[in-house]
Amino acid sequence: MSTETTLLDRLRELVESTEPGPVVLEGVRPEDIGDALERMEPEEGIVVLAKLEDELAAESLIHASTETTRSLVEELPDSQLARYLDVLAMDDALDLREEIGDERYERLLKMIPHEDAGEIQRLLSYPEDSVARLMTEHFFRISPSATMAQVLEEMRRSPEEKYETINDIYVLSDDGHLLGVFSLRKGLRAAQDIPVSELMNKDVVTASVLESDEEAARRMARYGLYALPVLDERGRMVGLFTGDDAQDILEDAETEDVLMMGAVSGAADSYMSLSVWQLAQRRLPWLGALFIAETLTGAVMRHYGTGDQDLRIAPLMFFVPLIIGAGGNCGAQVTTTLTRALAVGDVQVGDWLRVLRREVATAFIVGGTLGLLGFLRAWLGWKSPMDLSLVVAVSLPVVVLWATSIGSLLPLAAKRLGIDPAVMSAPFITTFVDATGLVIYFEIALKFLHR
Amino acid sequence: MSTETTLLDRLRELVESTEPGPVVLEGVRPEDIGDALERMEPEEGIVVLAKLEDELAAESLIHASTETTRSLVEELPDSQLARYLDVLAMDDALDLREEIGDERYERLLKMIPHEDAGEIQRLLSYPEDSVARLMTEHFFRISPSATMAQVLEEMRRSPEEKYETINDIYVLSDDGHLLGVFSLRKGLRAAQDIPVSELMNKDVVTASVLESDEEAARRMARYGLYALPVLDERGRMVGLFTGDDAQDILEDAETEDVLMMGAVSGAADSYMSLSVWQLAQRRLPWLGALFIAETLTGAVMRHYGTGDQDLRIAPLMFFVPLIIGAGGNCGAQVTTTLTRALAVGDVQVGDWLRVLRREVATAFIVGGTLGLLGFLRAWLGWKSPMDLSLVVAVSLPVVVLWATSIGSLLPLAAKRLGIDPAVMSAPFITTFVDATGLVIYFEIALKFLHR
Repeated sequence: MSTETTLLDRLRELVESTEPGPVVLEGVRPEDIGDALERMEPEEGIVVLAKLEDELAAESLIHASTETTRSLVEELPDSQLARYLDVLAMDDALDLREEIGDERYERLLKMIPHEDAGEIQRLLSYPEDSVARLMTEHFFRISPSATMAQVLEEMRRSPEEKYETINDIYVLSDDGHLLGVFSLRKGLRAAQDIPVSELMNKDVVTASVLESDEEAARRMARYGLYALPVLDERGRMVGLFTGDDAQDILEDAETEDVLMMGAVSGAADSYMSLSVWQLAQRRLPWLGALFIAETLTGAVMRHYGTGDQDLRIAPLMFFVPLIIGAGGNCGAQVTTTLTRALAVGDVQVGDWLRVLRREVATAFIVGGTLGLLGFLRAWLGWKSPMDLSLVVAVSLPVVVLWATSIGSLLPLAAKRLGIDPAVMSAPFITTFVDATGLVIYFEIALKFLHR
Repeated sequence: MSTETTLLDRLRELVESTEPGPVVLEGVRPEDIGDALERMEPEEGIVVLAKLEDELAAESLIHASTETTRSLVEELPDSQLARYLDVLAMDDALDLREEIGDERYERLLKMIPHEDAGEIQRLLSYPEDSVARLMTEHFFRISPSATMAQVLEEMRRSPEEKYETINDIYVLSDDGHLLGVFSLRKGLRAAQDIPVSELMNKDVVTASVLESDEEAARRMARYGLYALPVLDERGRMVGLFTGDDAQDILEDAETEDVLMMGAVSGAADSYMSLSVWQLAQRRLPWLGALFIAETLTGAVMRHYGTGDQDLRIAPLMFFVPLIIGAGGNCGAQVTTTLTRALAVGDVQVGDWLRVLRREVATAFIVGGTLGLLGFLRAWLGWKSPMDLSLVVAVSLPVVVLWATSIGSLLPLAAKRLGIDPAVMSAPFITTFVDATGLVIYFEIALKFLHR
């Protein structure tokens, strides 16, 4: 996009300029500066950060990719980095820990206000990828006997950073249990002297501290909510999981799923931020594994293609790409469809029998069609003998049925075993079906051609 | 999940019960009822809807899948459906048009209040998939000279449905131009007697009426916003695009992209709502096209495998799965990575040269490794002669380089031509690389083995 090029140019000018002190960049957002930083040398990036106001600099830093952030953080002096940690929202400050490194992070925490450091330490005590890691403790809480007049008074009195959002007001008992919630919109329209307990809705969608962030984010999206209260094991509300974090989590989760479907492993880092070596590292393990698995397919061909099997081997071979292509593509279709349906909650593991019935029925339609096409290609197209053409016509539906069953059951089985179903991705299924599909094809050939 | 089974059971009990009138289902959400409706017969669903309050029934109806909604809508009498249109948010009421059918929809519009029908007609005049179709006209607008005291007074006075959200307050000039925005949170904390023009932030991220909904939703997500003001061609604010709609759009867009990567075409309908016939319909076109393309691969094998080429054809054939597997998987990896990077905005079309350089470098690492593995497999594993082993060792890196170049350039070229890059999906690339990769392999074999 042209605006981004322009911003990159503007920032490069900033690097050259001798103008001191914080520069004001009207209407420029940290997300865009973060992108631009990824396209600059780290030395340039450091100069840009130093020339910006702390808050904009800190937010730009966290919006750059992991790799860029890491290389910038390495060059930044402790004092500057500590100031950044101080101005960031807690969950963002927490996020930087990975790039800064544990030891240095501990040291920096001692340099920021005690209260903030304490909150970060508290959040850090929760497991990674848990909702608690991303929650904010800055939500608006009130006791059930308070009135709206008191709510408004409290909002006016408190410093701006005390509440990250005030759209929803959480009613908590004295011991911190969540009793209900109501929107500020509703509160403003109500009489100002009735207790908030009369305004609140007691049926609240919540998350629990140890829950996986992706699960909670999906629930938030499903119900069209903008935030979920986070409860601890004893039902006390300890924080708020907000929609912006949920959106980031979902985007990263989808990216990881999509990449896994393309046989690329690794976290959702920006493409441009990865080095060639890192790109290769994310691809080689899968590729190597698939390569070794694919030698099985070659072994199957050798097994049937040599020795005294007396198959008319060369003509049979020419249909191998058709057979493994059809099986692989069908398997990929089914596994992609089901992995996605599992991810968005359309299908549950308990539905496996229903899924299998549907897929088998679909396989009959699809396999029958491909079998017919294959027969016509073999008999009329390549003028193959009738018996060979029939082998192709019979093999295709059987391989399709096999691929479809494998492609539908493996993702469900993975989910059942607590493995991410995206691991049973299209390339995995395809490669598995290549070898096994060929066995089916050659066995059928032995039956038909050996009478 | 067990809660859903329970809800399904509860709704089935409701169908059986003779209790009249609207039943109150404490703490049950329309999204969950929508899911349950998908798992019921339409006749049961009709009874459930009739027993619920109109608002809950209407929202449950729109949360079911397209197919379920369509079959329920067919059975509902006009009067009931008109009541539903009346209680729904405008964008949701608009959404039902597809399921209801144009003619009947026009008739129903005449049965609901004139003002609501007018708003729906206005939104309908915008193109499908445009932001305007999803926007709400119920946002809080105020003139720049008003004070916060007046804002609060206006909020208290107006009926609840007048504003879908009041988190952000939009300052509009007399002729409707957006001058700025400020959060209610900021407004509440400010002095109540200063004009809002002093509170507002003039730098606003907006959407325009004709923009694609997916593009606007991505922008909203990128900047972590909860709503975007929608401006018409003359810069007047005509509506608000809210985060819940953006989230739905993004989820559907990702689902469609993911399915396309698995060679499944069609919209993001729920898996369970599609009939077997529909499932086959979404898979067969791709499968047929890939099948026909794959006969090319067979043709390549026939071309090199028959006639007087005098290649030691059978041993060469056994490496075909390895060669096409490696090429296909590499192509799939690259195209998946780039399609995703394009979708989330990490990579732009203008980056093509940089991308190609990175991919070629990666291909050297990956191809070299696979070439070595292939050589070892051929020479030590299958005791192939040295010249054949060398053919495998040389072919693999060349095929990988070819697959990588195709896999990186085609998605970028598609994007450049205004085609959805997801069309250049892994199965397409894989199949294309199968045939062309084999030509490379056999040509190298001819050179090496024919001296």
